[in-house]
Amino acid sequence: MARIVMKFGGTSVADLDRIRNVAQRVKREVDAGNQVAVVVSAMSGVTNQLVKYCTDLSPLHDPREYDAVVATGEQVTSGLLAIELQRLGYEARSWQGWQIPIQTNDAFGKARIDGIDGSALLASIESGAIAVVAGFQGVAPGARIATLGRGGSDTSAVALAAALKAERCDIYTDVDGVYTTDPRIVPKARKLQKISYEEMLELASVGAKVLQTRSVELAMNERVRVQVLSSFQDIPGTMVVDEDEIVEKQNVSGIAYSRDDAKITVRRVKDRPGIAAIIFGALAEANVNVDMIVQNLGADGTTDMTFTVGKADLPRAHAALGAIKEEIGYTDLLEDPDVAKISVVGVGMRSHAGIANTMFRALADKAINIQVISTSEIKVSVLIGAEYTELAVRALHTAYGLDAA
Amino acid sequence: MARIVMKFGGTSVADLDRIRNVAQRVKREVDAGNQVAVVVSAMSGVTNQLVKYCTDLSPLHDPREYDAVVATGEQVTSGLLAIELQRLGYEARSWQGWQIPIQTNDAFGKARIDGIDGSALLASIESGAIAVVAGFQGVAPGARIATLGRGGSDTSAVALAAALKAERCDIYTDVDGVYTTDPRIVPKARKLQKISYEEMLELASVGAKVLQTRSVELAMNERVRVQVLSSFQDIPGTMVVDEDEIVEKQNVSGIAYSRDDAKITVRRVKDRPGIAAIIFGALAEANVNVDMIVQNLGADGTTDMTFTVGKADLPRAHAALGAIKEEIGYTDLLEDPDVAKISVVGVGMRSHAGIANTMFRALADKAINIQVISTSEIKVSVLIGAEYTELAVRALHTAYGLDAA
Repeated sequence: MARIVMKFGGTSVADLDRIRNVAQRVKREVDAGNQVAVVVSAMSGVTNQLVKYCTDLSPLHDPREYDAVVATGEQVTSGLLAIELQRLGYEARSWQGWQIPIQTNDAFGKARIDGIDGSALLASIESGAIAVVAGFQGVAPGARIATLGRGGSDTSAVALAAALKAERCDIYTDVDGVYTTDPRIVPKARKLQKISYEEMLELASVGAKVLQTRSVELAMNERVRVQVLSSFQDIPGTMVVDEDEIVEKQNVSGIAYSRDDAKITVRRVKDRPGIAAIIFGALAEANVNVDMIVQNLGADGTTDMTFTVGKADLPRAHAALGAIKEEIGYTDLLEDPDVAKISVVGVGMRSHAGIANTMFRALADKAINIQVISTSEIKVSVLIGAEYTELAVRALHTAYGLDAA
Repeated sequence: MARIVMKFGGTSVADLDRIRNVAQRVKREVDAGNQVAVVVSAMSGVTNQLVKYCTDLSPLHDPREYDAVVATGEQVTSGLLAIELQRLGYEARSWQGWQIPIQTNDAFGKARIDGIDGSALLASIESGAIAVVAGFQGVAPGARIATLGRGGSDTSAVALAAALKAERCDIYTDVDGVYTTDPRIVPKARKLQKISYEEMLELASVGAKVLQTRSVELAMNERVRVQVLSSFQDIPGTMVVDEDEIVEKQNVSGIAYSRDDAKITVRRVKDRPGIAAIIFGALAEANVNVDMIVQNLGADGTTDMTFTVGKADLPRAHAALGAIKEEIGYTDLLEDPDVAKISVVGVGMRSHAGIANTMFRALADKAINIQVISTSEIKVSVLIGAEYTELAVRALHTAYGLDAA
């Protein structure tokens, strides 16, 4: 007998038939003698509708009220799945974030989990009841409802798995695992049996939408074994595990892309110490996350500062940079939303040279211009024109020998 | 400066435009210097959709899970109205039942309010914030969400008005007051300026949908002055007040109808003491409310027990009665959902004879068969075939001299 956490995303609970299907999945695990906590997302489309309500009323709405509104989606699903499980003859009950409680900080709209008191939940599970937990939500100081940001149900699930000392956290989704890249772009993409936390973390943070970045981070820190698998097909998924568990390490495990970024160039800034601090300080203050950064020194004592921000943050970034124009004295602000970030990820990079070079060569062969480069220990990312996204991903997939036979 | 509670029903908050309109109403009261708590229902249609989800999954769903699901409708509206009020420049925050808390008993699905700790809410109001309270919901022992039954937001509003010692509880709705009967059936129906708690209570309990029965009961007990008025038109509504405040008392104040009931006949039960206790005990245990009851004694030592229950309770009633078939030995269970209950209500009945007779005669004149009769001090109700509803209401409205000139 094991204790497991199962998490089902929005498309897996999109309607009553799919909720019935989810109940069957849960039933199977319970019938096998497992203690089960299920974490559910909102029925797909619901969260978007609720977000739209808030945004239509006021683009700058109070995130506390936004959270009260959008947290309802998961609440509905949790109750419905409990009803269906009871209909099948199982003891089950829904749990909202505040009932467990899942304590968060007060960063409403993208709160972090501060702690989970699993005792009541655990007592319920051990008494034989299936716990159906509303994902994406917790309770902040002052007993206000807080949500964890888009994809937050993954984080709910991993955090619960850690709190309950679960043997496994199964993330059921509309894909059947983690692929070497997006199969919609590269039909020869292969499903990975296993992937390390580190690689998954890099892939998630650069655009692979299969898991929320923070959930992977948490899984890595808490050593929660995570499985990504399909709610619709009955086949093994991808295990996200410790690097040690992976016998045959690839140089490159996966290729991710993201079109969620925009490029900003601050032209001909005076090149003096502290300029970067002013620019990125202003952006941080405006709550704009900056990703890739590159600085080109000119001959005339000025410099161009180029970096990427989330597309949604572009207006805020624009305003923040406008406010410091006097202070730092740039000539132009160039903004380009038509860019894509392509990343190759693999723990093998630690021990193998030439991985980045393979990338640059493959892109050059296709005459794709690289605008910005950034690297980490196990990742190389480049910024290119958005129109080359598919071409680049396919070329790299082949170049790293990832194509299925 | 006064403290008032304003309550807006589902049609008043049906979409974002109507929520904006509600915010304007609230703004006016606040600008006039009043301290305001607003109670909101779910956007119209939302609760029905949520109920349908539960019922489609399982007609005999766990009312605790049903409550977790349907309570979300009000939560959404409360957050949205708070956002809109903030946009207008007012301090406002949403309050869920468990946050206040509004303590209920554990009769999930139709819980009663046991008590409201108004201190946190009051402190917030007195600090200058508008309280936007999710109606219809509270928190039961064990920290489970409980709902107050259909129309429960009225009760939330009145209970809050009592807890906050509010001067007035304004119930904004899609009609502009309480009428002598449903104006959609009788165009000559008249709006009442005032109506007594007692009459309103009877009207509400027999189908006038303008206020939830329990809310009137509570208003009467707590002496809360309730006003029923339109969210869309700016005209005075109907005040529900103490009988003493009404100078000119009518014999009959109003005529109500309800098609929410179903008739059940338990055929040829053995006529022995305790039979009724078994039948109605079983129904009470199944949480089925029984309304009108009539017993016909047969010549052969058996009896037919006829009574009405809410249509929604019919499956549960059927199951409960099935379980005691052996014990009480009836031959058949006849179920007829095609019935309507027509009621005439008036405090004048206390002092005037012949009110019931006028009713029976008027119905007989239209050849409408009366199936069951029940009376109270200020009410006479009859059960008739549903198809005669409008005919009966019109005939009675004329017979009691209620038609507008």
